[in-house]
Amino acid sequence: MKSLPADTYVEGVRAGDRAVLARAITLVESEHPRHAALAQEVLTRLLPHTGRSRRVGISGVPGVGKSTFIDALGMHLVGSGHQVAVLAIDPSSSVSGGSILGDKTRMSRLARAPAAYIRPSPSSGTLGGVARKTRETLLLCEAAGFDVVLVETVGVGQSETVVADLVDFYLVLMLAGAGDELQGIKRGILEVADMVAINKADGDNKLHAAQARAQYRAALHLMRPGAEPVVTTCSAMEGTGIDTLWDSVESAVAQREASGELALRRTRQQVGWMWAMVHDGLRAALRAHPEVSALIPSLEEDVREGRATPTSAALRVLGAFLPQTQA
Amino acid sequence: MKSLPADTYVEGVRAGDRAVLARAITLVESEHPRHAALAQEVLTRLLPHTGRSRRVGISGVPGVGKSTFIDALGMHLVGSGHQVAVLAIDPSSSVSGGSILGDKTRMSRLARAPAAYIRPSPSSGTLGGVARKTRETLLLCEAAGFDVVLVETVGVGQSETVVADLVDFYLVLMLAGAGDELQGIKRGILEVADMVAINKADGDNKLHAAQARAQYRAALHLMRPGAEPVVTTCSAMEGTGIDTLWDSVESAVAQREASGELALRRTRQQVGWMWAMVHDGLRAALRAHPEVSALIPSLEEDVREGRATPTSAALRVLGAFLPQTQA
Repeated sequence: MKSLPADTYVEGVRAGDRAVLARAITLVESEHPRHAALAQEVLTRLLPHTGRSRRVGISGVPGVGKSTFIDALGMHLVGSGHQVAVLAIDPSSSVSGGSILGDKTRMSRLARAPAAYIRPSPSSGTLGGVARKTRETLLLCEAAGFDVVLVETVGVGQSETVVADLVDFYLVLMLAGAGDELQGIKRGILEVADMVAINKADGDNKLHAAQARAQYRAALHLMRPGAEPVVTTCSAMEGTGIDTLWDSVESAVAQREASGELALRRTRQQVGWMWAMVHDGLRAALRAHPEVSALIPSLEEDVREGRATPTSAALRVLGAFLPQTQA
Repeated sequence: MKSLPADTYVEGVRAGDRAVLARAITLVESEHPRHAALAQEVLTRLLPHTGRSRRVGISGVPGVGKSTFIDALGMHLVGSGHQVAVLAIDPSSSVSGGSILGDKTRMSRLARAPAAYIRPSPSSGTLGGVARKTRETLLLCEAAGFDVVLVETVGVGQSETVVADLVDFYLVLMLAGAGDELQGIKRGILEVADMVAINKADGDNKLHAAQARAQYRAALHLMRPGAEPVVTTCSAMEGTGIDTLWDSVESAVAQREASGELALRRTRQQVGWMWAMVHDGLRAALRAHPEVSALIPSLEEDVREGRATPTSAALRVLGAFLPQTQA
């Protein structure tokens, strides 16, 4: 990729030019060291123009109707005058082609809406790397004028905690009939949700969905006393319940904004990202260190077989990596 | 503290000599660099004699009756011929004197039982440091012949995940009447529990406890389909339900042992401890690095105020800490 001058990115993104936005995203997604400094310069200059969107995370296992839901929610938002960006975090996409498809056919209406912008998950690297790219893409979208950013993830790996650290509000889609189809939901995901929406509340399934809502309300009241997420039902297919769902999101976020909680959360997230990247960088440097990487297999083996204590093995790794320090 | 020769520790611990065991624990708890090598030598020589206990974590907020419960459970175990060690992880103890009291009066019967050994939480340092000491104390207790090790924690901080990574089975004590008194329970603790025991199921509270058990069963079935923890009731004060509770623990652990799951879990835990200590060591080295620690306040401020991106700040930290690497 041939990069543009910094000014061109900054001005193009600020003007909402989609072609320049796409190239700026490609720039921040680039793994090439030559692009890193330019990307950070562009982002730093755009920072004063970021932060003005509602950042909403959306998780749900395959089959829950996530694409249809985002299509319906996105169209509702666009119809209300919002500019909507849809991003994704799917670290599996580099291996499998992804559970979140990159093509735009799965959100067919939203893909054609001029006020919407859909960007597939960055497809390479570790979860930390994918998250970094999505965070910076989110900032670019905000600087380009999008006032709602939806970040989707499949909710079966570690990605949901990463998304929770990236957004203002976290929505988990579920199905009625809590049985086998929910096995894919990762333990812990309901612990960070701000809202649980039972999708496919349509036709014969309406009653089941209402029952499921009551059950989740009771369960979450018990599991998270004092901090229960909103539990609601909707049908993305029929488009019902989407407007009231968004009203709840909007009023919850507005309340946090008024109380100062939102600003505090975002500040914490930013400092948290900085430290997450420092720790990711240290791990990468450790893996890339020739002496350490030569040591690790036999040390792990010794620990596994009970020949060495975890402490003694850790001290050897640290001693090889940081010989100057008294680890 | 004057340390003993390595042989004296190894032989004394193996012989179950309480005085030597106490001195060996003091040795692994020591922060003095002079003691670290000796401690690791002693532990490494004892490793072949470790691993033969049931390691059970017990959490519960203050007021749930944890001390009374451990006293009752410990007496039941001792009465069945077990040798029981009780350890604690309470990182707050260095600041506040601890929510888990160090004195032995709170487990009055167990403290006098010859087959039991109660050791308060290591009282200094970070959670990582406290966890390391408790892990190594657990190994010493196993080498000394204890066949049940109970590790308690207050369950209001991060310590419960650390305990979950340390034990074979994780038991959370709760109270009936899921209301204000449960607010202290940390989000996520019920996600790692193998068993939930509703304590104080006695007198007028019996019916409430039975209702709470049914509610928790339903909630956990919904929240953790396919992996629900056992939910039971007991009265530590009256000593009821303790025997059946332990039978459930024992049969669950025996089942995991037979399936090979237990061995796999322990191996994973050991390798996980090694890496946790490597990462703790890196963080400590980062904090101790003069240039880095001088940079951090202004970098964090820049990130907080939106003057710098988290990425650019992280790259500066890494560049200062590891100038030789291409971070």
